[in-house]
Amino acid sequence: MPIDQTSPIEVTALAWVPPFARGFVRDLRVRWALEEIGLSYRVRLIKGTGGMARGPARPENYLAEQPFGQVPVYREGALCLFESGAIVLHIGAKDERLLPRDEAGRSRAIAWMFAALNSIEPQTFTLTAVTIFFGGAPWSAEARTALTPMVAQRLAHLSAALGDKDWLEGRFTVGDLMMVDALRAIPDQALVVAHPNLADYLARGTARPAFQRAMAAQLANFIPDQTAA
Amino acid sequence: MPIDQTSPIEVTALAWVPPFARGFVRDLRVRWALEEIGLSYRVRLIKGTGGMARGPARPENYLAEQPFGQVPVYREGALCLFESGAIVLHIGAKDERLLPRDEAGRSRAIAWMFAALNSIEPQTFTLTAVTIFFGGAPWSAEARTALTPMVAQRLAHLSAALGDKDWLEGRFTVGDLMMVDALRAIPDQALVVAHPNLADYLARGTARPAFQRAMAAQLANFIPDQTAA
Repeated sequence: MPIDQTSPIEVTALAWVPPFARGFVRDLRVRWALEEIGLSYRVRLIKGTGGMARGPARPENYLAEQPFGQVPVYREGALCLFESGAIVLHIGAKDERLLPRDEAGRSRAIAWMFAALNSIEPQTFTLTAVTIFFGGAPWSAEARTALTPMVAQRLAHLSAALGDKDWLEGRFTVGDLMMVDALRAIPDQALVVAHPNLADYLARGTARPAFQRAMAAQLANFIPDQTAA
Repeated sequence: MPIDQTSPIEVTALAWVPPFARGFVRDLRVRWALEEIGLSYRVRLIKGTGGMARGPARPENYLAEQPFGQVPVYREGALCLFESGAIVLHIGAKDERLLPRDEAGRSRAIAWMFAALNSIEPQTFTLTAVTIFFGGAPWSAEARTALTPMVAQRLAHLSAALGDKDWLEGRFTVGDLMMVDALRAIPDQALVVAHPNLADYLARGTARPAFQRAMAAQLANFIPDQTAA
């Protein structure tokens, strides 16, 4: 769906981020979920903080919407939600294409969402932190060497769980949406490519038209660099 | 509720862990949620891996139950669930005392669950990793110094969001259960104590009889050190 500024659903996104973060800001997951079920949304651009701080003035009371000052915030009528996981789960509950209706299927899809966010991302986040945020620190390379086997082991387990299935529970769910998004953010993609089935899975996920539209929309929303200062 | 080995609900737990991990293994969250709503459960003790590997033989096909080989796994009839977040959400859906029934209240409680797991724990997990798992590495102290301000900032935001409320949304929910569990695992508790309202919140959470029962049950289940080798 195109972005529609008259949509009843509003998603916040960052007005500008440095090149390395483009395509990786977490509103992408929310846009992707909405695209999968054909729901339009409007975008409210928010000035970031720290190295992301360019663009229009930051809303004065944004912490009341998002306790940690991050994006995305999701609004739909009186509902105001934060945390991309909670938002994607809320969107998933709207449509069987994202979240099966039977209890077992639903619970398993949610289990994979949590697995992406809590058994894969904390490890890969740590690796991203020492690689990117602390890449200049004298201890960065050593920390990376120590952490990499932890990530590699998790990915080996994930590869075994996926096996030769297209999606983690056979059919696409919000669990796959989160897992694909977690995998593509790993700074050293060789760790993923080491498992051909995971590499195929990642390619399958990011080839989905809904992902492509979400990605294009996030990238198109950043204000141009020359006007960003 | 006492553990009841005839209960229809089964939770896996580690048979033995080193002293520093006791009380922090993630079946605690699941036990706590069950205790809050008075549901009994049976325990299946699993031999851990690595430094946790003591006790009875590990089930041969445990990875089919838990893709990353961790605890807890939750069984209830035909349902087999993994990831403590997904399990606590499943238990929460059984009872209004854990998860409000109205959509807004329900979504907000879930948002705080995800906040605990994804906006607090990844930062604190990184700090735990460099403090405990890599405490002997020459770069550990420097990494800790670099990471601590990230954790401190998140806790400052959390403190502001809590304000003078007893619980994050006024009444206790699964969001508080997860947040309290995330806060108590921070290795440097001075970071929490720096915010009197967070320190009180943590004390309020861990003083709940259901938490106390869950903790006692986890500790009681570890096989004695002298028989653990």
